[in-house]
Amino acid sequence: MLHDRLAQELYAEILKIPLIDPHSHINPHSPAAKNLDEILGYHYYTELAHSAGMDRKLLEASPKERVKNIIGHLADLDNTAQYSWFLEIARTLLDFQGDKITAADAPALWDLAQKHMAQRDWEDQVLHKSHIEKVFLTNDFDDPLEGFDTSRYVPCLRTDDLVFHLDKPEVRQRLAKATGIEVGDAKTLRSAITKLFEHFTRKGAKACAISLPPDFSPRSPAPQTVGFEPSATFWLLAEHCREFKLPFDLMIGVNRKVYKEGVYQGQDLFDQRTSLIQYAELFNAFPEVKFCVSVLSSNQNQELVSYAWIFPNVYPCGHWWYSNIPAYIQSDLRARLQAVPKTKLIGYYSDMYKLEFGLPKFNMYRRILAQVLAEDFVRARIYNEHQAVDIARLLLRDNVQRIFAV
Amino acid sequence: MLHDRLAQELYAEILKIPLIDPHSHINPHSPAAKNLDEILGYHYYTELAHSAGMDRKLLEASPKERVKNIIGHLADLDNTAQYSWFLEIARTLLDFQGDKITAADAPALWDLAQKHMAQRDWEDQVLHKSHIEKVFLTNDFDDPLEGFDTSRYVPCLRTDDLVFHLDKPEVRQRLAKATGIEVGDAKTLRSAITKLFEHFTRKGAKACAISLPPDFSPRSPAPQTVGFEPSATFWLLAEHCREFKLPFDLMIGVNRKVYKEGVYQGQDLFDQRTSLIQYAELFNAFPEVKFCVSVLSSNQNQELVSYAWIFPNVYPCGHWWYSNIPAYIQSDLRARLQAVPKTKLIGYYSDMYKLEFGLPKFNMYRRILAQVLAEDFVRARIYNEHQAVDIARLLLRDNVQRIFAV
Amino acid sequence: MLHDRLAQELYAEILKIPLIDPHSHINPHSPAAKNLDEILGYHYYTELAHSAGMDRKLLEASPKERVKNIIGHLADLDNTAQYSWFLEIARTLLDFQGDKITAADAPALWDLAQKHMAQRDWEDQVLHKSHIEKVFLTNDFDDPLEGFDTSRYVPCLRTDDLVFHLDKPEVRQRLAKATGIEVGDAKTLRSAITKLFEHFTRKGAKACAISLPPDFSPRSPAPQTVGFEPSATFWLLAEHCREFKLPFDLMIGVNRKVYKEGVYQGQDLFDQRTSLIQYAELFNAFPEVKFCVSVLSSNQNQELVSYAWIFPNVYPCGHWWYSNIPAYIQSDLRARLQAVPKTKLIGYYSDMYKLEFGLPKFNMYRRILAQVLAEDFVRARIYNEHQAVDIARLLLRDNVQRIFAV
Repeated sequence: MLHDRLAQELYAEILKIPLIDPHSHINPHSPAAKNLDEILGYHYYTELAHSAGMDRKLLEASPKERVKNIIGHLADLDNTAQYSWFLEIARTLLDFQGDKITAADAPALWDLAQKHMAQRDWEDQVLHKSHIEKVFLTNDFDDPLEGFDTSRYVPCLRTDDLVFHLDKPEVRQRLAKATGIEVGDAKTLRSAITKLFEHFTRKGAKACAISLPPDFSPRSPAPQTVGFEPSATFWLLAEHCREFKLPFDLMIGVNRKVYKEGVYQGQDLFDQRTSLIQYAELFNAFPEVKFCVSVLSSNQNQELVSYAWIFPNVYPCGHWWYSNIPAYIQSDLRARLQAVPKTKLIGYYSDMYKLEFGLPKFNMYRRILAQVLAEDFVRARIYNEHQAVDIARLLLRDNVQRIFAV
Repeated sequence: MLHDRLAQELYAEILKIPLIDPHSHINPHSPAAKNLDEILGYHYYTELAHSAGMDRKLLEASPKERVKNIIGHLADLDNTAQYSWFLEIARTLLDFQGDKITAADAPALWDLAQKHMAQRDWEDQVLHKSHIEKVFLTNDFDDPLEGFDTSRYVPCLRTDDLVFHLDKPEVRQRLAKATGIEVGDAKTLRSAITKLFEHFTRKGAKACAISLPPDFSPRSPAPQTVGFEPSATFWLLAEHCREFKLPFDLMIGVNRKVYKEGVYQGQDLFDQRTSLIQYAELFNAFPEVKFCVSVLSSNQNQELVSYAWIFPNVYPCGHWWYSNIPAYIQSDLRARLQAVPKTKLIGYYSDMYKLEFGLPKFNMYRRILAQVLAEDFVRARIYNEHQAVDIARLLLRDNVQRIFAV
Repeated sequence: MLHDRLAQELYAEILKIPLIDPHSHINPHSPAAKNLDEILGYHYYTELAHSAGMDRKLLEASPKERVKNIIGHLADLDNTAQYSWFLEIARTLLDFQGDKITAADAPALWDLAQKHMAQRDWEDQVLHKSHIEKVFLTNDFDDPLEGFDTSRYVPCLRTDDLVFHLDKPEVRQRLAKATGIEVGDAKTLRSAITKLFEHFTRKGAKACAISLPPDFSPRSPAPQTVGFEPSATFWLLAEHCREFKLPFDLMIGVNRKVYKEGVYQGQDLFDQRTSLIQYAELFNAFPEVKFCVSVLSSNQNQELVSYAWIFPNVYPCGHWWYSNIPAYIQSDLRARLQAVPKTKLIGYYSDMYKLEFGLPKFNMYRRILAQVLAEDFVRARIYNEHQAVDIARLLLRDNVQRIFAV
């Protein structure tokens, strides 16, 4: 909660902005949670509970039992931002009345969730209470993109498999099935990727996205490149983003499977020794492509600020994963607001798997944004309150609309 | 503007200190701007406007037209610290009355600037209003250093060309012309550099300066070094700094021409993967030389603090370029004030090309300094207000005087 | 001093927690200072005074003269956190009445120290006033660990010599003397190390510790490894930590002897280009070993937070050396409290050589902790004041007790 009155006033106004969430992992066929397990099964809880000492085997249980097991370990992590998200979900969306959630609350909380989530319009309720109008998805390249409202759930072509796993027969088979093209060389790969972009844009896709390891350094491929070299495939994707006018979301800095015995999705970490200079050739080669860049490490935020200050096609985007806690959001946001043109800032995305997380995550961001605007802009006499809210509208809605053409 | 009353009081006192600006790009033959184009032509504006979407071609216009074009794009970046500098110049130096500057203000603002800048004593007015007493210059090695008052505009030998471009015939020709020595080997190079140092010190130069890429790592050259190897030439400069008792300004961390299609002076960026350990051999080899070190990345500030805490000959200097925004100045300054002897801190420099920028840049710094002193020192009962202002005097004036012997 | 009333109230409560200091360099046979020279001889003062311009030769004097020489240079560094520690020692422990310490105070301060330190129960007084119950030591591998109360002074096996200097005959001789085993190969090395662990655990040791250079990257050794390769010896220590159930303190990031002409213990610095990814194989290989990790650079704090959030066996520990100033403690602590389970945080350690430093160092930390808890938790309505103090108790006492089994 905010205790600064000016920030509270700004927050109240910011809450009225119907926002667009430019990156999530929502399944549009099942966007909201069906039970509490779909909330607490989020890796942020399983990995923190495991890190705090919970045996991974306690996750191999029935959904209700698993929820009880995880809640039973929350006391050890009730200091974390992630716990506060869950508490806000429970209190604001599920009518939970307590101030904290203990093991004893597990059965009642399960029932509360069952009652609320069974409501026919639960999905709409959640979006409405969260002030979220549209949500971008993360779609596998072979997703048929059918059976959902693409004006609410905006498709986005996720390309990690194509770039990093094309050497695997099963990925090439999926690609053959999706495109009708057996990929064997650079030419057939280009044709297949063109097919994918045609399919995705026809279905309303508004972005191409990829997550990248800290040592990735894309280079313009030599003409005779053979095989499925990640850098060459990546370059091909950038060419298609240019041709199909799709912004390219780069999520930079994750090392996969660092903690081998970690819980599902709780194994990835990073190496802070990375630089956006690795992308200088790319940014130069594709001036027409909008690169919406997320960095995993807050250390890299100054590079992101500086590259966005210089390159017209670099857009700072959200506060990703290990940087998605108030201490880092606040310092990263302050620098962005002081040095990057306001029309280039994509404020925040939820990265959520279930809609319920939109509310606490965006509220966390909206509070920090309100506080930063209060301190650095309104009290500093740079903006009045009305202008400060206009900035928030750019970061939460208008810039997303303009940059992604939604 | 400051809203903290104690900080305001300190700021008012700090403003009275006649400061010395230890690094600028002022042309002493034309120190103040002659029209508004010389203000808005500063790369901070052209690059931000371009980054926000302005076509570079709009800069290829008459000065008055160019000013209109840039002002027409300021609305997209009115959140930035750089915009606030311009607004403060307009309001404080040019008597502009508005709260913000829009495209419609361009003609009137042009005229205001013409009126003020045409005044005979404009240069003196600007320095007086900025509380600036002396300004260090950045002089090419072949600058005759004549025709200006070197007690107001202090010469400084800039050596980037010598270290990094001596392999170019035109640089060697300039050197031959300046020194009368055709440089062909280590011995003639040493003689030529000695000539330069003799010329510069005779003319009142008080520093040698250079900007360095992030991967530069100077090493004591092997005796038989031939050719014009940057590290060897750099070492030769350090030897001359020792001999001629000139502090050596090291500006560490810039990669040149990263954004190839960028505007003039708006192409340089950095790689955060750099370390002051690269300079350990240098700092050890030249205990008599004062190294005044600027770092481009705020990430490197802790190294700078720690190296200055340990090495007697390392002096933290200013807040350079991409670190020259309030968020980074504040955090960098706090750490320096908590861990480096106060007599070693060179607070701030303007890096300006025209005198008008001294006022908003130093005011930005003076406000942050006042706020940090208020919070970390006066309220923490470490210093009283009088002592806090004494610290500011060290950072803004006395340390510069003592370290550079001006 | 704190000026925030809520933080003051929390601080007052936090002060009542009898804490355990999990890392120091106390000599248990002479834990408290015997004169003022044993306070001001601490490298934090000698190196800062030298950095501020004091000739090293002024340290080659009688203790009383040396104290006078150092105090004579304190005026140049009275802005530093380190100076404030000394002032707090003088005022709180030695009944010094002044607000600052000048050269003129040296004789009187010397006498005050003599008077107080001569008291029979001085050691107990200091511990009592500091609210310190137990203090971990740093013991050489050949320390007999005899003649002191190991329930107050907890032994800890320091292993830098074994890992990095086993190629030196004198180290192998010390090892032979301590264990009765002439080490010549992997097998005898294992036997000797087992002997050391048996000796240390029998004597009540509760941790194994080591400091590591930034480029250290331990790897599981190949079976046929010969010689005394640091990585292989380090791995052997981890195996013994597992077998003997000792937490392994890793102090990551120090380069030794960077400033060759520095004062005693004032020569070490660091290279910020380091990553915890270098320890991924180790953390994976030893899930049963608790790794209590300190990082030298605040830049690396986000990695530490993230690795502790994911790996159950990684525990963030204290604020080490160049990160042990308020600006870095505050930002590092905020992130840890927002993202790491509270039961895994080892708040602070003194790193002290003499007991007198426990008071000002822990008070500095206690104040910052109180302020962070006030702002981020109590005012944000996450915890009430009582719960906030409970968190402090975990960080200062309970977690140390549980993790190290003391």
